[in-house]
Amino acid sequence: MATAPSVSYSMTVRLEVPASGTAVSQLTTAVESHGGSVTGLDVTASGHEKLRIDVTIAATSTAHADEIVEQLRGIEGITLGKVSDRTFLMHLGGKIEMASKHPIRNRDDLSMVYTPGVARVCMAIAENPEDARRLTIKRNTVAVVTDGSAVLGLGNIGPMAAMPVMEGKAALFKRFADIDAWPICLDTQDTDAIVEHVKAIAPGFAGINLEDISAPRCFEIEARLREALDIPVFHDDQHGTAIVVLAALTNALRVVGKNVGDVRVVMSGAGAAGTAILKLLIAAGVKHAVVADIHGVVHADRDDLKDAAVDSPLRWIADNTNPEGVTGTLKQAVVGADVFIGVSAPNVLGGDDVAAMADDAIVFALANPDPEVDPAIARQTAGVVATGRSDFPNQINNVLVFPGVFRGLLDAQSRTVNTEMMLAAATALADVVTEDELNPNYIIPSVFNDKVAGAVAGAVRNAAKAAGGAPTA
Amino acid sequence: MATAPSVSYSMTVRLEVPASGTAVSQLTTAVESHGGSVTGLDVTASGHEKLRIDVTIAATSTAHADEIVEQLRGIEGITLGKVSDRTFLMHLGGKIEMASKHPIRNRDDLSMVYTPGVARVCMAIAENPEDARRLTIKRNTVAVVTDGSAVLGLGNIGPMAAMPVMEGKAALFKRFADIDAWPICLDTQDTDAIVEHVKAIAPGFAGINLEDISAPRCFEIEARLREALDIPVFHDDQHGTAIVVLAALTNALRVVGKNVGDVRVVMSGAGAAGTAILKLLIAAGVKHAVVADIHGVVHADRDDLKDAAVDSPLRWIADNTNPEGVTGTLKQAVVGADVFIGVSAPNVLGGDDVAAMADDAIVFALANPDPEVDPAIARQTAGVVATGRSDFPNQINNVLVFPGVFRGLLDAQSRTVNTEMMLAAATALADVVTEDELNPNYIIPSVFNDKVAGAVAGAVRNAAKAAGGAPTA
Repeated sequence: MATAPSVSYSMTVRLEVPASGTAVSQLTTAVESHGGSVTGLDVTASGHEKLRIDVTIAATSTAHADEIVEQLRGIEGITLGKVSDRTFLMHLGGKIEMASKHPIRNRDDLSMVYTPGVARVCMAIAENPEDARRLTIKRNTVAVVTDGSAVLGLGNIGPMAAMPVMEGKAALFKRFADIDAWPICLDTQDTDAIVEHVKAIAPGFAGINLEDISAPRCFEIEARLREALDIPVFHDDQHGTAIVVLAALTNALRVVGKNVGDVRVVMSGAGAAGTAILKLLIAAGVKHAVVADIHGVVHADRDDLKDAAVDSPLRWIADNTNPEGVTGTLKQAVVGADVFIGVSAPNVLGGDDVAAMADDAIVFALANPDPEVDPAIARQTAGVVATGRSDFPNQINNVLVFPGVFRGLLDAQSRTVNTEMMLAAATALADVVTEDELNPNYIIPSVFNDKVAGAVAGAVRNAAKAAGGAPTA
Repeated sequence: MATAPSVSYSMTVRLEVPASGTAVSQLTTAVESHGGSVTGLDVTASGHEKLRIDVTIAATSTAHADEIVEQLRGIEGITLGKVSDRTFLMHLGGKIEMASKHPIRNRDDLSMVYTPGVARVCMAIAENPEDARRLTIKRNTVAVVTDGSAVLGLGNIGPMAAMPVMEGKAALFKRFADIDAWPICLDTQDTDAIVEHVKAIAPGFAGINLEDISAPRCFEIEARLREALDIPVFHDDQHGTAIVVLAALTNALRVVGKNVGDVRVVMSGAGAAGTAILKLLIAAGVKHAVVADIHGVVHADRDDLKDAAVDSPLRWIADNTNPEGVTGTLKQAVVGADVFIGVSAPNVLGGDDVAAMADDAIVFALANPDPEVDPAIARQTAGVVATGRSDFPNQINNVLVFPGVFRGLLDAQSRTVNTEMMLAAATALADVVTEDELNPNYIIPSVFNDKVAGAVAGAVRNAAKAAGGAPTA
């Protein structure tokens, strides 16, 4: 599978080259002939004999970037200076900060922002706790909580190493929904402890975005927190993914002219995302779903399920899917299926497996960075193909969902988040794509489509108000 | 004790008055004759017959503000409109927000701030955890943690009602030391639970500022957290107060020409602040200290101390003060004393008590808003008087200390905060006042003196580096 050079593997190289001659064109050629891409070239100093040039180069991986630098080193007359990784440069000192909304210029300002003026505001809230949503940051503030146990595709790297993702998430909350989010990276992976810590910090927040917590602990943690807290708790890896998948599926079905109640859906992956997707698809009307995990198709008689606890996630899947009692492997299950949704591992299917699906098949291969099946090959026989990658059409990206969902929840002062709100979010997201725009390569809008967050927020806000989540207007 | 009108009890009143005649001058007169002060007067609309005026008025209390409004209502021809409280207006929606350091304009930005680029940064930290201080917000981020048990002088109003103070504190951290602080208001007042919660959230922070936690729990919480964490933990109500008191005392002693090792110090109050002040004064060389609490002078034979636990704070005071074995009341103890420091309750001393102190007595009456003794009366016989109030000279204000202390700790990447660092902070703060500036009404600089935070930070940074707190340069 060919990968395009990406700015996320981008570096800036400082070079000195002879002022005359072909060194500059040689260096561009060297970068491009080795699969890199020159995305910027600034002459930062110039003399009679030498030029100092900062060249910014996009590569496909760290190793590729190193290889290109070695090529540059080989060009005669070029002196290599500092090599800076743009992504790391951007992370120096972190990506977010706290800002004060009011200047503190003099004693008058101080006496209102802090003592003695602040005391009256505190007393107002002590007398009427609901005023906290009016007189403090609570109403617009979300905690992005992780234990670092399932960070991106990197696995259990711990809370400190998870920080860059949580900061990035906070930055996206601000960018797309003007929400003030702050990372809370917990130094424990114990389910009971996580529940207690999140309950304890809740007073200052209007919502909890759980992030990158591994299954099956994430199910219990979310369920217990929802029960305990009077603010919405949303594990984005589960429900953010589920909502965007349902929105994409809704539009993909429109493209191929099939009905959600009729299609046979086969899923690969029964983790946090897979389980949440499955539940939301069933709520949206999917009747024929089959789920496969690493041991094959999930069915009630499978050996590892006979002893599974009644409330185990896998048991729930066995009880609520596969009415036809399909057994065997994933590859066997996808034969004749209308929809494949993968949230599992790279390359579990080949082009022949996609070809064996029903006509106008829908393939969502969402494993990142390497999908369950090469999307270019899948596209040869399938009707619609989507991935999690930004370098193919139809990117399934949670950024389409979580900012708008929380915006809607906060605006409604919702105390919960439920399936109706999530279904409303998916419908609103799908409907951002107009009838005229809809086609096999455009089932889902871009994350930079400025209608998305507002549409999702509006739908969630209305659903939350209908659910009675808003204590005040 | 006369109190001046304050902007912290400030309101803006919208009025309609006749365009001609004396209504405008009448309204100014009415405000001032009732003890208020007109701090702004804007004509916001004007016609042939009527003016619309927004008058901003400072009062001394909420009741006083209401009384003034009633006076305005009585002036003939004036129609009263909306009355807005400026302090409450400033608090609408809270005082702080999160801000992104980098714009997210396009897919390239997104791929560096978030996936896929962020994954490499996470892996770098997973491989070398110390990199978290380089590549995340950790290095400049402080948690402002409270349980709402002792908020200002308001008492146990709980975590939600404490939010405005914690937000204000965060705003001050930014304003005076460019530190990113975030409020963490805990929904528990259990000592063990608070310790566990703060330990759990620590990975994302480089320091913990404990705030407004009541004694004696605050002592144990701080001690256990200092033991458990590899970042500094500082209860500002204790140590911030202690440092600024020591700095002010250092300069007051310079003014009256007395020696720290010779003076007899009498303290009123054995709570969080009192205990911390006492310990720091002893570390600074005070040899003759007597402490009184609500039951009178603390001494080893006092009834309530006979059964006190060996490690109780009051027992520590009994064992480490009062070598002469003074007994009796506070009023008895201050006779002949060189220094009085009150962190207790209003009006526990009168002018005659101050007059009975030694010549050139130093009186720090820090109870807020009403001091232990009227500072105007104390000043008639004492050599130096300081309070916690902004409307008298020599304001003892923690804002002089905590921003610089944490700036120094963060810059040194300190893992602890100890007595040497606090003594260094006090000396640096005292030394901001030059020999030429020093006088009985100027023993401590203004919070807006722009030398303060840098001086304190530098002293703490050096002391922290000397203590070996910095793991890297």
